[in-house]
Amino acid sequence: MTPDIAAARAALGHLDIDDNPVSVRAKSRDFFWYSPVLKARLDHLTADFVVAPRSEAEVIETLRVCHAHNVPVTVRGAGTGNYGQAMPLAGGCVLHLKHLDRVTAVHPGRVICQPGALLRDVDAACNAHGQELRMFSSTWATATIGGFIAGGSGGIGSCTWGQLRDLGNILRLRVVTMEETPRVLEFRGEELSRVSHAYGTNGVITEVEMPLAPAYDWVGLFVAVDDFDAAARLALDLANEDGILIKLASVFEAPTAQDYFQRVRPHIRDGEHLVALMIAPHAMDAFGVFLSRRPGARLIYRSDAHDWDRDPGPVFEYGWNHTTLRALKVDPAITYLQVLYPGDPYPKMAKMRALFGAEVLQHLEVIRAGGTCGFASLSLVKFTTEERLEEIVRLHEAHGCFVFNPHRYTLEEGGRQHRDEGQLSFKREADPKGLLNPGKMIGWDDPDFDYATIWHYPGMKAAE
Amino acid sequence: MTPDIAAARAALGHLDIDDNPVSVRAKSRDFFWYSPVLKARLDHLTADFVVAPRSEAEVIETLRVCHAHNVPVTVRGAGTGNYGQAMPLAGGCVLHLKHLDRVTAVHPGRVICQPGALLRDVDAACNAHGQELRMFSSTWATATIGGFIAGGSGGIGSCTWGQLRDLGNILRLRVVTMEETPRVLEFRGEELSRVSHAYGTNGVITEVEMPLAPAYDWVGLFVAVDDFDAAARLALDLANEDGILIKLASVFEAPTAQDYFQRVRPHIRDGEHLVALMIAPHAMDAFGVFLSRRPGARLIYRSDAHDWDRDPGPVFEYGWNHTTLRALKVDPAITYLQVLYPGDPYPKMAKMRALFGAEVLQHLEVIRAGGTCGFASLSLVKFTTEERLEEIVRLHEAHGCFVFNPHRYTLEEGGRQHRDEGQLSFKREADPKGLLNPGKMIGWDDPDFDYATIWHYPGMKAAE
Repeated sequence: MTPDIAAARAALGHLDIDDNPVSVRAKSRDFFWYSPVLKARLDHLTADFVVAPRSEAEVIETLRVCHAHNVPVTVRGAGTGNYGQAMPLAGGCVLHLKHLDRVTAVHPGRVICQPGALLRDVDAACNAHGQELRMFSSTWATATIGGFIAGGSGGIGSCTWGQLRDLGNILRLRVVTMEETPRVLEFRGEELSRVSHAYGTNGVITEVEMPLAPAYDWVGLFVAVDDFDAAARLALDLANEDGILIKLASVFEAPTAQDYFQRVRPHIRDGEHLVALMIAPHAMDAFGVFLSRRPGARLIYRSDAHDWDRDPGPVFEYGWNHTTLRALKVDPAITYLQVLYPGDPYPKMAKMRALFGAEVLQHLEVIRAGGTCGFASLSLVKFTTEERLEEIVRLHEAHGCFVFNPHRYTLEEGGRQHRDEGQLSFKREADPKGLLNPGKMIGWDDPDFDYATIWHYPGMKAAE
Repeated sequence: MTPDIAAARAALGHLDIDDNPVSVRAKSRDFFWYSPVLKARLDHLTADFVVAPRSEAEVIETLRVCHAHNVPVTVRGAGTGNYGQAMPLAGGCVLHLKHLDRVTAVHPGRVICQPGALLRDVDAACNAHGQELRMFSSTWATATIGGFIAGGSGGIGSCTWGQLRDLGNILRLRVVTMEETPRVLEFRGEELSRVSHAYGTNGVITEVEMPLAPAYDWVGLFVAVDDFDAAARLALDLANEDGILIKLASVFEAPTAQDYFQRVRPHIRDGEHLVALMIAPHAMDAFGVFLSRRPGARLIYRSDAHDWDRDPGPVFEYGWNHTTLRALKVDPAITYLQVLYPGDPYPKMAKMRALFGAEVLQHLEVIRAGGTCGFASLSLVKFTTEERLEEIVRLHEAHGCFVFNPHRYTLEEGGRQHRDEGQLSFKREADPKGLLNPGKMIGWDDPDFDYATIWHYPGMKAAE
């Protein structure tokens, strides 16, 4: 099973192939560096070469050749993931889908496109038909739809539509297997969960069909609120207003906006918490009524009518993981957690705020799950040591909070800490040699792993 | 304050006016006869004449003239309401809005139209732009949008969008007052609740602006389920699937479908309960997955692919108050209640089923309220006497159920049994003589009424 890199590279020489070490290294990186833990482990990694197929046939050819020569293949879109999803742990080939960027068809309620299409470009094509994607990541301007499906879980729009994994939020995926003779499969319904959010460990997506929502000229808003609970309740209560259509409701504990949101800072007072919203224009009157009933809240910005000297840009680029990114740019010691507060969230949030103070700042995103709106917190953490970070996680768990650890590069550790049998069994079928994105599915490499410590992929390329 | 009918009639003689007793009586009736209690009290009523204005100016003229001559004015759309909303208790003038039926403009997310436009025609105009009304009554084919707003509360679509009264579900209402010199007012935001669901007691709506949803070729479905709780859970759980877009989820306890749904009867087994659904076509794959996980449920009809000899027509014409209508056509003794089951609905429903057996059949509609899906039951009742009906209401209340009594013709008694101060204070301003739809707002006529018994409007025209 020794990879023959040179033979594979030679057999693929007629494709768009790159083996310049500098650019290969650049194309072998994603946004894993949001996590100091992942940065310490993955920073040295690079693929041996990068192939950018121009068609599904070239995807098939690449997978066939790499299979024959035992060369690992790690698929990437734009590389905006934060969990090392696209990092080639064992080197080999990075399959870059940038040329597969065509939007094929837009129908009422659905779009068909290639995986390398940018979310922004998919939306542009859908907008021409009065429609848009139900949800997207805060990296909308640069991320691909295939990367979002394979490596993401939800984002802007999840306050209304839930998560990508929910029934109906992905319609169809076309997938190529990594076998001696790769097969092309079409998945719908129950089968979709085999390959969505599987980091490309068990197939390469070559076409996607996604459901759409009506497109509106969403009004972006910032609301300053004098009390943290009141800010959180404003966001959640608004999401529960059935007649007011929203696309985003984010809450930033003070002094997140004061310290990290440069263009918001002049407009917010010390101690005020910030709520970011996207609201359909025809719901703005109703929102005005809603807001007028909350005396501690003041509207400081609306994108359709404001007098700010410097436009803050799209409001959604302050939410989800753009919050972490903005904080990181100001303070390189910042990292984050992903926390759920089951049951009544308010006492748990109060407890975490009391326990950690400025070390952990609440950053809430309203998401819908099982028909009910609640918070996901992408809490900002001032990183000191890995040991302290682990302690912060343990303290959250000790108080009944769930943590989805973003400082892990495997599917299981970043999720619910157990393997997905559907994904694993499909990997056995579709990637019998285990060459697709190796090291990302513990269930494949080490079925007896007990999750007591961070997992180490034994096949990881050593730093030079 | 004695009305001078003849003078008013003469002054309005140049308008579209009708004083033929037979047709005036027909135009003085709504669907109050769903209730045997209302039928006993309202059946004899008729207006003195009917005016059908052709413009807002003619509305103003009619109100000005009737005000001058102390003539009561009761506004009507199509008269499909079930609470006697459009019944002229004191006679006088019925203002028929059939000529004000223009759809003025359709914008992204909203429509502007006149109140007499049929819901069906508003939708047709919106469909040309890929949009449709968020919610409508089961009388969509014949009811007007003004009547829906003034006399209704929700319906098909409320499983997703909540009720008409929720912030954002009505955008703007233009209203003419009943004064010496009628004024034209525009209401938005907080002011809308003054006149929406006020039965035309404090103003005449002459233009409406409503929010829209994307239009889809909704697939109508019937699902037969072997167990009542499983049927209810299927409907509620489906509404809680955030990625599956639905417009209707209704549950009919057996033998409702067997006894009253003629075209469904051949396809459903004895004892099976029926669920009626409307699902967006691009969510049908996901619904297939959802349904496959429920072994006791079988799909017996989908509107886009079926082999039924006799097409059942639109699925929504089995839900909401069309259920009662279909039952009434088979068994004239059938009437209904409107019940909410606060908290966990399943034990309460089980208790009611055990208590009443075939006398009260559950008919559930899934509605969203405050962000949460739940059931409204428009329970079918085999009517015997008014006393027994009252006892059934009391037994519901004794077990913690809320009943909104459809056997009452006043705003307060059909609602939460207290007056709406906003509507009352606007009536003082907009209808100082109390001539608009007299007898429908207890707060105006008898502020001290204690709701211990059915209220009797002292000004009601006697039977001849």
